[in-house]
Amino acid sequence: MKDYAIGVFDSGVGGLTCVKELKQILPNENVIYLGDTARIPYGTKSGDTVYGYALQDARFLEEHKVKMFIVACGTVSSVMMKRPVFDKKKLCTGVVYPAVAEALKKTKNKRIGVIGTSATIKSKAYEQAINDIAPDVKVVTKACPMFVPLVENGYTSPDDPISTAISRDYLNVMIDEEVDTLIMGCTHYPHLKGVFENVLGSGVSLVSSGAEAAKFAKRVLQNENLLSDRKEEGRLELYCTDSVELFTENVETFLGHNINAAISQCVLK
Amino acid sequence: MKDYAIGVFDSGVGGLTCVKELKQILPNENVIYLGDTARIPYGTKSGDTVYGYALQDARFLEEHKVKMFIVACGTVSSVMMKRPVFDKKKLCTGVVYPAVAEALKKTKNKRIGVIGTSATIKSKAYEQAINDIAPDVKVVTKACPMFVPLVENGYTSPDDPISTAISRDYLNVMIDEEVDTLIMGCTHYPHLKGVFENVLGSGVSLVSSGAEAAKFAKRVLQNENLLSDRKEEGRLELYCTDSVELFTENVETFLGHNINAAISQCVLK
Repeated sequence: MKDYAIGVFDSGVGGLTCVKELKQILPNENVIYLGDTARIPYGTKSGDTVYGYALQDARFLEEHKVKMFIVACGTVSSVMMKRPVFDKKKLCTGVVYPAVAEALKKTKNKRIGVIGTSATIKSKAYEQAINDIAPDVKVVTKACPMFVPLVENGYTSPDDPISTAISRDYLNVMIDEEVDTLIMGCTHYPHLKGVFENVLGSGVSLVSSGAEAAKFAKRVLQNENLLSDRKEEGRLELYCTDSVELFTENVETFLGHNINAAISQCVLK
Repeated sequence: MKDYAIGVFDSGVGGLTCVKELKQILPNENVIYLGDTARIPYGTKSGDTVYGYALQDARFLEEHKVKMFIVACGTVSSVMMKRPVFDKKKLCTGVVYPAVAEALKKTKNKRIGVIGTSATIKSKAYEQAINDIAPDVKVVTKACPMFVPLVENGYTSPDDPISTAISRDYLNVMIDEEVDTLIMGCTHYPHLKGVFENVLGSGVSLVSSGAEAAKFAKRVLQNENLLSDRKEEGRLELYCTDSVELFTENVETFLGHNINAAISQCVLK
């Protein structure tokens, strides 16, 4: 089982922020990634629909030799918190708990902000996870439905005027409420990190939910003694549900041009 | 058959711009509308995926008593131009030909602009349709992937600074190329009409593809002697594939608060 892959899924390319971190901290692991690009985005859809999609995504990964799942999608991670997890025999993490654990370590004034898709914020998953551990922490949440389209359409330069204007609208409440730590609760958002830093100033620490999920998965696999003994670089297999051509363009934006990965289209059942 | 309904479908709520026009010009007709909100948007996806979804949408409407289909989605209309239509026994129109016919009537300088989703523009459906009829017309096209999220997130006020900035980016080429007529090739776009008018000035006529499809359907049904003799107001049945709750919010934005419609969730096969 040590040589099995780590399975990661998301609605699209956002979860590649988690894969990028995995490749850095666990370069010898095989990784299988699924992006459900034929039905992206999840974040504007209802909890029931998102959960149905997530079960199909997980089933696809189960057909491969996978030792752990990472749900690298803020929306699925939030929506599934109150529902049965996929396969109880498999190790599994979403992005919520790893991001919350890191934010609680970082905050000094006990005021944490959370930004995410409409479905994520509506689920209240983050504030429940934070207040279960630390009831005295004030949690300020804000749904930011324009951030995914902005990232997918390349408005990601730190001084982009449109992303800056929209970020000001969304993030003003974080400044007013004096949060010192902001969880980027959607795995697309790290691509707007430069914009957020300009809008929020240096007093606010940003937490990337995708990267934290990767670090958390490493700790879990270490504890379970399931890290691979492989000496060579691990394989990266990417699957998408819409065309490979469309996916490949976005993969380069998220992972860089020097990735060595096999990309295939698949059908979910 | 006269009393059968007109079936209309779109990826989401955009096609309701067509339904709104239908209710005005054919108030006694029954209308059945399907919005595939569980998989919205179509415009960023590949032609094959969109076509597969469209076949399922049409199949759903075929299960009802429908005398004519309107494909009130710019993306499906564009992508299906080169493929077999759904049910050859049924009358059917997309939005491309009706919008093109109207634009050719309106243009004086023979320079027509077309804006649409990435999939629509990539298909080249509009320029082919225009140049098949009028080879001397210059066609200027521009993919505008941010317009659907802007409409869906309410950035629709004529002086909205964010929609104005994004529209300037996208529409500058129309000003440079001196088009006098602009086809809004996606049924969401009429909600940004005020913004477009401010950016383009009064010298440019705007053509709503959804409204033109409704007018075209009326002419077809008149020619075929298939208009209903019904004296009372026609029924409006709305179906969506994601939750009714999410859909209802958007329906009001598109059709107004005084609509009288039954809204149900459905599953596509």
